[in-house]
Amino acid sequence: VTNGAIASDVWEVMSTCRAIRRFRADPVPTEILHRCLEAATWAASGGNQQPWKFVVISGPEARAAMAVGARKALESIEVVYKMTRPAADDDSPRARNNRAVYALHDQGRDVPAAVLFCVRDLPSTPELLAGGSVYPSMQNFMLAARAQGLGAVATGWQTAGEPEIRAAMGIPDEYHLMGLVIVGWPEGHFGPLRRKPIEQCTVVDHWDRPLVREG
Amino acid sequence: VTNGAIASDVWEVMSTCRAIRRFRADPVPTEILHRCLEAATWAASGGNQQPWKFVVISGPEARAAMAVGARKALESIEVVYKMTRPAADDDSPRARNNRAVYALHDQGRDVPAAVLFCVRDLPSTPELLAGGSVYPSMQNFMLAARAQGLGAVATGWQTAGEPEIRAAMGIPDEYHLMGLVIVGWPEGHFGPLRRKPIEQCTVVDHWDRPLVREG
Repeated sequence: VTNGAIASDVWEVMSTCRAIRRFRADPVPTEILHRCLEAATWAASGGNQQPWKFVVISGPEARAAMAVGARKALESIEVVYKMTRPAADDDSPRARNNRAVYALHDQGRDVPAAVLFCVRDLPSTPELLAGGSVYPSMQNFMLAARAQGLGAVATGWQTAGEPEIRAAMGIPDEYHLMGLVIVGWPEGHFGPLRRKPIEQCTVVDHWDRPLVREG
Repeated sequence: VTNGAIASDVWEVMSTCRAIRRFRADPVPTEILHRCLEAATWAASGGNQQPWKFVVISGPEARAAMAVGARKALESIEVVYKMTRPAADDDSPRARNNRAVYALHDQGRDVPAAVLFCVRDLPSTPELLAGGSVYPSMQNFMLAARAQGLGAVATGWQTAGEPEIRAAMGIPDEYHLMGLVIVGWPEGHFGPLRRKPIEQCTVVDHWDRPLVREG
């Protein structure tokens, strides 16, 4: 596995597509971003209605609104995850992870590239299921970024800064703001995924019957 | 592009991963299903909490509950999409698509394999965003299925048959039912995707500025 490099094998791409929060300053070429967007459109959606809308965040007004979301999101994260800025000499895994979270949010408006994922409100779809017609496209976007050697992370900045973002980007009320993905060339490498094995999150037929793998 | 066959190129997999609703009777080997589940766990989730739970639907009680969902979902679909069973001699694209929808729902409990995707309710996550921590994993599952030559389709059967499914599978109240994926060896080939180009679903900085591609 060649972390951080271009990859085309679907298993390698999926299994090394981890959140990247530190980016080099180099810009993301337009045609590379467009390939990510095209991959996003390949996802399925309810009744193939393709109710998604993607906002590429590029200019100063849109970036300023995004930065408001970043600042407010960081305040929430500090509360929810009881997180504080790690001491400079703390090299624990948690400190390194937290340092990357602060680095991302401090960068705010100056991230290399960003795309806001929206979805149209559909009367026949309960709010809980609205994401079913946009998060698969966001995942395709992340995988296409990884395949091209880009790092990406999905944030909640669009919710933290919703009023400012709606106003600056002119987003109509009938669209929900679902995710804001930051993308850029990774500083460092992709690193390993940390995930529980399928036995811990899969049951067969009933909640009381965890999956057992032979061999 | 070798539709219907095994594929490992991520671009081929993503761009040919369309909804499959007609399956051969052959069973889905356990190890192939497990690879799909493992790919599902590679997805990101908020704070890497991995709040997903997958229910493999296999035995008669679980399948009977699923079939209730299939029957009720079909009733909803007929209303929402004003769909009726196509005449036997109607070979229009719409008739062929609708015929596949009926074939899927009529199969009900006898589909080759099925997995229910659930997500734990998290107090810090609004209901609208709950899917952000499970639909990316469902998309990875679909792509891993496609890569192995399996066809799959995400249904809303879990919502249509929610009381019966919760009861039969013992699903706790703090878990949301988010999607029910049917999977099996495709009858026929994968066929082309029908999607709008990115210019029709992407704006730059503001809703009034559609993406323009040079060249």
